[in-house]
Amino acid sequence: MTSITEYMHSLGKTARTASRAMACASTATKNAALHHMADLIEQQADALKAENAKDIAQARAKGLDDAFIDRLTLSDKAMSTMISGLRQVAELPDPIGQMNNFKPLPSGITVGQMRVPLGVIGIIYESRPNVTIDAAALCIKSGNATILRGGSEALHSNQALAKIVQAGLAHAGLPESAVQVVNTPDRAAVGELITMTEYVDVIVPRGGKSLIERLMADARVPMIKHLDGICHTYIDVAANIAKAIKVCDNAKTQRYAPCNTMETLLVHADIAQDVLPQLCKIYQDKGVELRVDAPTRAFLEKNNFKNLVDAVEKDWSTEYLAPILSIKTVDDLDAAIKHINHYGSAHTDAIITENHSTAQRFLREVDSSSVMVNASTRFADGFEYGLGAEIGISNDKLHARGPVGLEGLTSLKYIVYGDGSVRV
Amino acid sequence: MTSITEYMHSLGKTARTASRAMACASTATKNAALHHMADLIEQQADALKAENAKDIAQARAKGLDDAFIDRLTLSDKAMSTMISGLRQVAELPDPIGQMNNFKPLPSGITVGQMRVPLGVIGIIYESRPNVTIDAAALCIKSGNATILRGGSEALHSNQALAKIVQAGLAHAGLPESAVQVVNTPDRAAVGELITMTEYVDVIVPRGGKSLIERLMADARVPMIKHLDGICHTYIDVAANIAKAIKVCDNAKTQRYAPCNTMETLLVHADIAQDVLPQLCKIYQDKGVELRVDAPTRAFLEKNNFKNLVDAVEKDWSTEYLAPILSIKTVDDLDAAIKHINHYGSAHTDAIITENHSTAQRFLREVDSSSVMVNASTRFADGFEYGLGAEIGISNDKLHARGPVGLEGLTSLKYIVYGDGSVRV
Repeated sequence: MTSITEYMHSLGKTARTASRAMACASTATKNAALHHMADLIEQQADALKAENAKDIAQARAKGLDDAFIDRLTLSDKAMSTMISGLRQVAELPDPIGQMNNFKPLPSGITVGQMRVPLGVIGIIYESRPNVTIDAAALCIKSGNATILRGGSEALHSNQALAKIVQAGLAHAGLPESAVQVVNTPDRAAVGELITMTEYVDVIVPRGGKSLIERLMADARVPMIKHLDGICHTYIDVAANIAKAIKVCDNAKTQRYAPCNTMETLLVHADIAQDVLPQLCKIYQDKGVELRVDAPTRAFLEKNNFKNLVDAVEKDWSTEYLAPILSIKTVDDLDAAIKHINHYGSAHTDAIITENHSTAQRFLREVDSSSVMVNASTRFADGFEYGLGAEIGISNDKLHARGPVGLEGLTSLKYIVYGDGSVRV
Repeated sequence: MTSITEYMHSLGKTARTASRAMACASTATKNAALHHMADLIEQQADALKAENAKDIAQARAKGLDDAFIDRLTLSDKAMSTMISGLRQVAELPDPIGQMNNFKPLPSGITVGQMRVPLGVIGIIYESRPNVTIDAAALCIKSGNATILRGGSEALHSNQALAKIVQAGLAHAGLPESAVQVVNTPDRAAVGELITMTEYVDVIVPRGGKSLIERLMADARVPMIKHLDGICHTYIDVAANIAKAIKVCDNAKTQRYAPCNTMETLLVHADIAQDVLPQLCKIYQDKGVELRVDAPTRAFLEKNNFKNLVDAVEKDWSTEYLAPILSIKTVDDLDAAIKHINHYGSAHTDAIITENHSTAQRFLREVDSSSVMVNASTRFADGFEYGLGAEIGISNDKLHARGPVGLEGLTSLKYIVYGDGSVRV
């Protein structure tokens, strides 16, 4: 074994041991750790900023851009968000130990289920150091141990935050090693983390598509992830025009970068004339580039639109994350559903319609982690769904689908009560 | 691409298309297919047996043993079990389309969840041809398409059963390609099936440990599986002796080969004298070899037991699947839990105790897919748990844990109802 393999395996072994104690920790104990962490961040704000300043200086020296520096910076706002985040997670109901669905069976046994932690969670993220706190908080509350691997550019900040997390754990009588932060920028550490199946139960990557594609190629540990968000809104022939315009404007323009922003608009041919001119004027006024198919171009040119770009095949499967929208006119609901299931990324897709049966067909047949009626795709988010927190969004089908909160970091085991019961 | 790659990818593509129709199929339609399959097996029993006879003849010519031939044979009993299995699955409630947990949220949207199929399920099994019918039935009822890959020795039988399944699907107006049976004995087909992530959503292997280890090494598609069942029973100091003896006898000797049979007995030192002599006499009378640690040997020799084998380290992590039992004396509950979490396979573990707090600690702290109080580990089974059917048992932590019924072949997606709702 190389030294990095040895180092990562020692973290894994320690995490596995700590996970046993975390699984049995009381709600009060876990909350005490979270509140103490919040107190420490408040008290040690200056020291944290000093460590953060080292990372920022190095990033500037490397010539990293302002957007990067912005994500790296522990501003006053970032600090207070971490503090309130910790206190909010402490307020959430504890999922661990919940027992449900107990049924007596003819054999005499009673069978139910108990919610339990997954065990050890590996979290891989990029430059934002606040993820160290967010991720640690969710793992602690859900009774898991975690190994955190942040971006190498945030190493000083993450080590300083790790000390606070571990002080919080120790204060509450929990093992400090329940949260470990990888202390090396060596990429080989990630390679070990995502393959040491004996010590890590699940990997949650938080970052862009390129990070996740890299991890997918090599991971042996299962991941909770989404690769991209190619989200659609379909304006049905039975849409209410006012709702269609309001929702489609919001889905595209409220923010351009999130994964739940609409990238493709599908419009029923028989309502295109009523909705597209008004809606596309909003888009163009806001500077959104429109990439359209031929029928859409025909409608829009009839209404004196200019600066339209012809959509090419690749547009239908592109996540722009930018003020660009592809628009396609479709003949019916079937065509819309077929387009979404073919080109989409199973993330979030919406229909605008007043027709009940059409809405129910769309909900059933669109194979995505979130499907919506008369609502903006931008709602696809753990906080908006009332989960209280979000570790990520999954568009895989196994385990958790859609926004993943505390429950996604847990599992159900079977509990059987007998009374000297035997099988015949 | 080699021809086998092309063949498997064509199956995958066809299955993906069929899965869209299966996801929307009504309960009545799916049940009609299942009942028609049952009718056809009844009507075509002789033809099926003729195909099965070809497989049996080849197996005999290859010198395969009687146990193998037994598993391969479509006896009258095997036929009637397939028929009643199909009718039972038809009677089960349809999990698909169930909607739950709708909550109105402050933003104005209402968020709930809908149960949906996973999509395409690959099932890999060994010589028993009846699995073709059982697996097809569960996949059809749960709205999934499936690609079945049975043992090469059962090729004639499986192809004949596949025709019946496809006739049942066609009769109900469902795509025949919703169930496809791989028609080549080439092992490369398995290699393709477990890696074509674009077409297959989950693999369910049904077979022994060596099959599953082979698959685990290469699979890229997630699997629902258990590798082995090293099941424990711990007799606590507060055990009722009569219950302990009855349950531990059953857990070991009711059947030796199943994965939920007890392989290691843990006994609290302070109750060993009361329970071990009586229990071990039963085991030895039934021909069970006892592999014991030193304290257990001391107790038993004091009571004139002979023919004891010294347990070695490897015994604690061995799944015997045979009339062999390892026995260890432990000092307390902590030692028992630690032993189980260290040496066990997270399958099924039981405690015998009358003490409520001890039972609750065991349930919470033993990290296994099924944990039991005063019941035989042999109960860990989808039918015994009231699931109505079982596709397998999972001791993984993500998605499904323990016996997996129809619900394990489904997923929950989020449903959002708005009324022109936008995010602010």
